[in-house]
Amino acid sequence: MSEPIILIQPDWIVPVEPQGSVLREHDLAIQGERILELLPRAVAAERHPQAERVTLPGHLVTPGLVNAHTHASMTLLRGVGDDLPLQRWLEERIWPLEGRLMSPGFVFDGAVLACEEMLRGGITCFNDMYFFPEAVADAARALGMRVSLGIIVVDFPSAYASGPSDYLRKGLELRDRLGDEALTSFCLAPHAPYSVSDDALRQVGILASELGLPIHIHLHETAGEITDSVARYGVRPIERLDALGLVGPDTIAVHAVHLSTGDLDRMARRGVSVAHCPHSNLKLGSGVAPAAEWLERGINVAFGTDGSASNNRLDLLAEARTGALLAKGVSGRAELWSAHELLHALTLAGARALGLDDRIGSLLPGKCADLVAFDLRRHEFQPVFDPVSQLIHAAGREAVAEVWIAGKRVVQTRQLCETAAQAIIPEVVSRTGMWQNRISDILSGNAAL
Amino acid sequence: MSEPIILIQPDWIVPVEPQGSVLREHDLAIQGERILELLPRAVAAERHPQAERVTLPGHLVTPGLVNAHTHASMTLLRGVGDDLPLQRWLEERIWPLEGRLMSPGFVFDGAVLACEEMLRGGITCFNDMYFFPEAVADAARALGMRVSLGIIVVDFPSAYASGPSDYLRKGLELRDRLGDEALTSFCLAPHAPYSVSDDALRQVGILASELGLPIHIHLHETAGEITDSVARYGVRPIERLDALGLVGPDTIAVHAVHLSTGDLDRMARRGVSVAHCPHSNLKLGSGVAPAAEWLERGINVAFGTDGSASNNRLDLLAEARTGALLAKGVSGRAELWSAHELLHALTLAGARALGLDDRIGSLLPGKCADLVAFDLRRHEFQPVFDPVSQLIHAAGREAVAEVWIAGKRVVQTRQLCETAAQAIIPEVVSRTGMWQNRISDILSGNAAL
Repeated sequence: MSEPIILIQPDWIVPVEPQGSVLREHDLAIQGERILELLPRAVAAERHPQAERVTLPGHLVTPGLVNAHTHASMTLLRGVGDDLPLQRWLEERIWPLEGRLMSPGFVFDGAVLACEEMLRGGITCFNDMYFFPEAVADAARALGMRVSLGIIVVDFPSAYASGPSDYLRKGLELRDRLGDEALTSFCLAPHAPYSVSDDALRQVGILASELGLPIHIHLHETAGEITDSVARYGVRPIERLDALGLVGPDTIAVHAVHLSTGDLDRMARRGVSVAHCPHSNLKLGSGVAPAAEWLERGINVAFGTDGSASNNRLDLLAEARTGALLAKGVSGRAELWSAHELLHALTLAGARALGLDDRIGSLLPGKCADLVAFDLRRHEFQPVFDPVSQLIHAAGREAVAEVWIAGKRVVQTRQLCETAAQAIIPEVVSRTGMWQNRISDILSGNAAL
Repeated sequence: MSEPIILIQPDWIVPVEPQGSVLREHDLAIQGERILELLPRAVAAERHPQAERVTLPGHLVTPGLVNAHTHASMTLLRGVGDDLPLQRWLEERIWPLEGRLMSPGFVFDGAVLACEEMLRGGITCFNDMYFFPEAVADAARALGMRVSLGIIVVDFPSAYASGPSDYLRKGLELRDRLGDEALTSFCLAPHAPYSVSDDALRQVGILASELGLPIHIHLHETAGEITDSVARYGVRPIERLDALGLVGPDTIAVHAVHLSTGDLDRMARRGVSVAHCPHSNLKLGSGVAPAAEWLERGINVAFGTDGSASNNRLDLLAEARTGALLAKGVSGRAELWSAHELLHALTLAGARALGLDDRIGSLLPGKCADLVAFDLRRHEFQPVFDPVSQLIHAAGREAVAEVWIAGKRVVQTRQLCETAAQAIIPEVVSRTGMWQNRISDILSGNAAL
């Protein structure tokens, strides 16, 4: 027996493919985990008379948003390192705290908080890089969320692994174990050129091409990173990565703030994707990424929130709005990055970066039904000339009303509707108070050693 | 008989004066329209045993936010001019639409929508510049909101007035008529150096000093404005204004994006306030204002939303966050503009710019009880190490739960509680549909002439 058909009936459907299309008086038919078709409401009524209907007056339906870069579990460190530049932020706050706190429990609790925040903000898929990725997988599974897990690699040891080969071994084992889960995929995630040795990077490049995995790496985040690389290796970080075989169409360059013309041309030529995290770059004083130059070259640009410790929220719509405003204001070109182009960056570009654009990122029939319905009826979103403009520039994540992932409704009238989530979240929130006390004790030097 | 005392009991009170202070286990006592005192909860229980209590667990109470620059009524033009630079935005969209639509009804409806949005976003006072300011006054009064009305002056005629002396005459008459209203004050509001002649500006300067009114003017918004002024007058706009007597401690320079060192030093020396509108500046491609340079010189910086046609929202917390992130990112100095400094800019600096700092802007006893309570209990704001950091960087206007203006509760559990507003808003929202249709007709060339 075939699965039942559900007709979703908002005021506007924006399928992202074709770009700029806004369908009115249309239904989105889903069946099981897939999109069946988009069709005029009158036709849908005739063709699917028995289908369940979800009527959404005043709502806009788009593909689910794809967060192309985060460290989900760092929600527990939200706000501990304000007003510090990247190196001091890492050395005085993040690394000492992580050194004391890192454990599967810390990673799981932080990831659950993050998944709830992301879902309620319209994010259906996130690309994570952190220790104990199995705990992130558990959190995502509990909340019904799609995740791209990073097989993290870094030179220094942690509570999770002892060194590069141990990181790789543990990540690959996890991939073998979870390989069958429909909502889970993997990236190789070497932390950054400055924190991973040539040998380990070379190994990552080989694995990436053998296994067909994307490579997810922080790159050219600060000016200092480039100066240091030139001093140490004689070349810029991206040149070093390229020589090691890590720069290609499966590479996700996170940040990519400081880029010469040569770097930009290389990225364009190699088909590299960017995960643009404007809030984190600004907040850490790293700089302003060259968005106009990316767009001119047709580079695939997705958005990422980065972790909550440097943001301090997992709000992808806010990233897109700030990204567009920055691009316009810094270049002086107000025409850059229209709302429809931004929605493409938030969805299909993210899916493409993660190698998932055959499954998600747009509302083509046959793709997974990862959907968000935004309620645009609030007075502060009126009048609505273009629902996508309103979504980006007037509204934001507070407009998220309904979310489906692979055909399953996970947010309904702004609340999580997963039974598993409803059981877990109160416990996690109560443990968040405990984590907060421990963090405060560590920061004030009162923690027992 | 004295008026009853109300004790407001949140988890945190941030009075802004002294800056950085965060009071826990304290009550805020208000009486009539004034703040009576801030005192430890235990003392309050003894001293005011009969007082009404408003318990707000997990809430942060701050002074009401002051929007130092807006054109409230332009909410009706929200989203009509995306992706256009300032001159094309004005000439192709805003001026033709205003030419067709301008009327007291248009101004009133737009201002009601704006007031609702601002109140629900924690803004208790706004500084407006638009035609038919009496209609803005009517809207603010209906919603119980504090307003600084602009006595607008511009060379070109409009449906409101025929020329500079008519604008001034009408504005001053309105001031005479409304002089007794406790929530209303006035600024002289010459539109911009490029749109007001020397004679009219001189007249504004004389009136400002005779009447003790602030001067609210767009200044150095674009590079082109400066080039044009140098070509036409031989001097930069701020030099011209200074020679005409319009640059002093009562001047509010709106935008102030393009400033030479000489301009900055002049502003600091003269004690000019800035109304910083980063979203509008970025969206119109005007540029990035020199916030680090303002802060270094101790210039009084307030935030403004500008109008919804160039923003497209009246969200002052978002302006502050973007302003801080921009300042950090563009200067490379992550330490700039802490959350507490931003809250000062959002409240006391705005009050000072408007000449209202003896009445509002901080929670000193004797000041008017203009207050906002932010509910920080949502999971996406956890953990809370510093409630002001969470407010600025993790939360936003969606956290606004309660608002008081001059001791009167105007927002309760996120909804307007003014009876007058409840009657008016549904009518205004229904007319918004009518305005939207007219605007669409005009933009598509289908409007009857």
